[in-house]
Amino acid sequence: MTKEEVKGSAEEEQQAAQSKKALKKQQKEAEKAAKKAEKQAKLAADQQTTEEDDFAQDRYGVCVLLQSQEKLDRSLVRVCELTPERAGQTVWVRARIHTSRAKGKQCFLVLRQQQFNVQALVAVGERASKQMVKFAANITKESIVDVEAVVQKVEQKIESCTQQDIELHVQRLFVVSQAEPRLPLQLEDAVRPEVEGEEEGRATVNQDTRLDNRVIDLRTTTSQAIFRLQSGVCQLFRDTLTKKGFVEIQTPKIISVFRAEDSNTHRHLTEFVGLDIEMAFNYHYHEVIDSITDTMVQIFKGLRDNFQTEIQTVGKQYPSEPFKFLEPTLRLEFKEAVALLRSAGVEMGDEEDLSTPNEKLLGRLVKEKYDTDFYVLDKYPLAVRPFYTMPDPHNAKYSNSYDMFMRGEEILSGAQRVHDAQLLTERALHHGIDLEKIKAYIDSFRYGAPPHAGGGIGLERVTMLYLGLHNVRQTSMFPRDPKRLTP
Amino acid sequence: MTKEEVKGSAEEEQQAAQSKKALKKQQKEAEKAAKKAEKQAKLAADQQTTEEDDFAQDRYGVCVLLQSQEKLDRSLVRVCELTPERAGQTVWVRARIHTSRAKGKQCFLVLRQQQFNVQALVAVGERASKQMVKFAANITKESIVDVEAVVQKVEQKIESCTQQDIELHVQRLFVVSQAEPRLPLQLEDAVRPEVEGEEEGRATVNQDTRLDNRVIDLRTTTSQAIFRLQSGVCQLFRDTLTKKGFVEIQTPKIISVFRAEDSNTHRHLTEFVGLDIEMAFNYHYHEVIDSITDTMVQIFKGLRDNFQTEIQTVGKQYPSEPFKFLEPTLRLEFKEAVALLRSAGVEMGDEEDLSTPNEKLLGRLVKEKYDTDFYVLDKYPLAVRPFYTMPDPHNAKYSNSYDMFMRGEEILSGAQRVHDAQLLTERALHHGIDLEKIKAYIDSFRYGAPPHAGGGIGLERVTMLYLGLHNVRQTSMFPRDPKRLTP
Repeated sequence: MTKEEVKGSAEEEQQAAQSKKALKKQQKEAEKAAKKAEKQAKLAADQQTTEEDDFAQDRYGVCVLLQSQEKLDRSLVRVCELTPERAGQTVWVRARIHTSRAKGKQCFLVLRQQQFNVQALVAVGERASKQMVKFAANITKESIVDVEAVVQKVEQKIESCTQQDIELHVQRLFVVSQAEPRLPLQLEDAVRPEVEGEEEGRATVNQDTRLDNRVIDLRTTTSQAIFRLQSGVCQLFRDTLTKKGFVEIQTPKIISVFRAEDSNTHRHLTEFVGLDIEMAFNYHYHEVIDSITDTMVQIFKGLRDNFQTEIQTVGKQYPSEPFKFLEPTLRLEFKEAVALLRSAGVEMGDEEDLSTPNEKLLGRLVKEKYDTDFYVLDKYPLAVRPFYTMPDPHNAKYSNSYDMFMRGEEILSGAQRVHDAQLLTERALHHGIDLEKIKAYIDSFRYGAPPHAGGGIGLERVTMLYLGLHNVRQTSMFPRDPKRLTP
Repeated sequence: MTKEEVKGSAEEEQQAAQSKKALKKQQKEAEKAAKKAEKQAKLAADQQTTEEDDFAQDRYGVCVLLQSQEKLDRSLVRVCELTPERAGQTVWVRARIHTSRAKGKQCFLVLRQQQFNVQALVAVGERASKQMVKFAANITKESIVDVEAVVQKVEQKIESCTQQDIELHVQRLFVVSQAEPRLPLQLEDAVRPEVEGEEEGRATVNQDTRLDNRVIDLRTTTSQAIFRLQSGVCQLFRDTLTKKGFVEIQTPKIISVFRAEDSNTHRHLTEFVGLDIEMAFNYHYHEVIDSITDTMVQIFKGLRDNFQTEIQTVGKQYPSEPFKFLEPTLRLEFKEAVALLRSAGVEMGDEEDLSTPNEKLLGRLVKEKYDTDFYVLDKYPLAVRPFYTMPDPHNAKYSNSYDMFMRGEEILSGAQRVHDAQLLTERALHHGIDLEKIKAYIDSFRYGAPPHAGGGIGLERVTMLYLGLHNVRQTSMFPRDPKRLTP
């Protein structure tokens, strides 16, 4: 706000602010329209000049909307395939304009395709006219182009690109899909480490801007790496369990009773993806704990062995210590955790649940003592668990239940389930639950049910914590929370 | 209703019916309680007799609730592993009582574990007392038992069991989880082919009874086979696409605008599992059709090659012709389909959508002419597709859209999507859609979007139609429709 705006009565102030706001909006729109008109005039002018005296007039332009007009017999080379072995070859590439820099008779472009990019040069000469270079320089960032170019080896490695040993010498250039000139965020800002932003005063992008413009934010190398690694988590989870003889099932999401949780935190979402395991066991629910921890260990190993590039990429923007785990997985009892916390000065009751800060503190204490970022906490107090949790057979205060933690945060909650309809009814009544509402659930145990246990893994949390990120919204493609339903 | 109930005024009638109903309920409950008491008395009596003069008293009984009291060092052999190679071995097996038949001093049990079962014999002799045989005969069907037995080869194949060459001679028998005596449906009725039920007047189970008691219905060999095959569809779908370079993503299910469809049909559910593909293409959306049809063909081949047992099992109850497909997949244009239908006497307009009966008829005509149960119908009239469908570039009446069919029913709807914000806006306005409501969607195309196409596959439909079933509720584990929200 300028000084002038602050004077006058509160009402005037409000009115002034409103009209100012409206005015600003109008100005902005007019500006936008003007820019668009200018742009179009420019392109038209370029095109006209082209038609008059441009020897390269057929070598560039804006394509008509691609509506599958024809089956073109032209193969496109992927950016990741542009290596020195292709030197001398003429190739067609489709990619986005990542950056563009005009300099006299040359225009340097960086062309991006998913997590890969390559330098391309449009230079006045045999292959391109000065109008063509100008055209290239005017293409908006993030537009998608088709480029015909000769692959050339370079003397000095191009450090800013993934394809460091070659560049493309462009001889044809067509815009397939134009981006609006003003981007709501810049990709280079979106991958800048916060520290660099703070220390060097350079722009970074805040989370709401990212999420409001998620389709652009998802194009960054960091996002690309996060979601490729996440798909790895899903695949490793299923492959491990399929090998163990599990059958994948799809459960209904529409149910008559929902569980409401506080979603206004860094680690809760209104909607999340649950990787759930339920398993009949023979004599002891630790058989199930062992199966789940082994599955997690297989996931950690698979990520470590097959997703190093992704881990490194995310680490550039969000540095973190490599994820550590033990084999076999460390299992502590709740009692032991309480003792550890008390020895660190925490005051808490025997049957009190862990608060989030205490969970995190416990994570640090466990890491110090056992050097692991993954462990199981077993035998929670019965009082803090849901009604369907099997009580401990030896001590009525405790239960056959467990949580699993990564870097001090819960990623799985599980338990031996009560498989006896009568005990289940008693436990539900004890919790003051309306039996009518869970009738179908209780009835399902009336016709013989094997002893079983299980747990639900939060996919977004596993991805977040494995990578050492700090907000679960980064690992949900289109996160939903009490304040966000779109995009 | 008996004759007596129909007389009197409407009010009286209603009252009478109500009190009759209440009475019946009371009677039923009393009956149930009496039976339970009788049962308990019987078990207690057995137990007492046992304690008095039973040499086998420690060899059988009802276990206390399994609460993970101890880590028993006893390995359980799976029913499918009970083969002649184990003859002479003493094994422990946990399984359900599938059927039980007492005959003098013997009791024959069929023990079931998932899709496998085996015959077990409890006979008065060295291994069992007459009290133990009686106890065995009284165990309710579907109860889960632990059995210690000697594996014995049999002379004559046991045709009614999957393990046909051996039987178990029981020497210990403990009930782990008791089923209530009265089952809401019998498993043997639930797998009986309808024809057999009709022709021989034997009991079958109607769909509502099945779904009301889905936890029992899911135990039949048919259900076991259906859902094992369905997990195969998911796995083949993902494996094929992962190999092609696709990345698995999780989309939000909570969105601001839902699409409402009539779910009161044999092939609609309120909730279904969608296997969705979106793919950027180079020049023509047929590249995407080819990718999807190839994926479907890989699924069909994988099912044919790896799920024959499941296909045969389902076929016993629901006979159908083996699923046929061509390579490459047959692709017809909508126009051709209209011509085919007209030649069969159907009257319909050029731009009219296919009705469900016409879809089915078309399926039969295509099967006759091309001998395939799977084909693509391409180039639907623009008027019958959603606003985001790309118009055909050569004929404004048509569109770059397609459906895929299995046995004459739609399993996928797809199209080239409009990737240009301006055209998308025009098309939305044309359809009378409130732009504010789809703002986030349209905005996502403002910053450069590649030409792309895709489609959504209905998992339950693929399973249903591949197996030649007739209701999609059979292939949804806990189906949801306008009349069903539980179990």
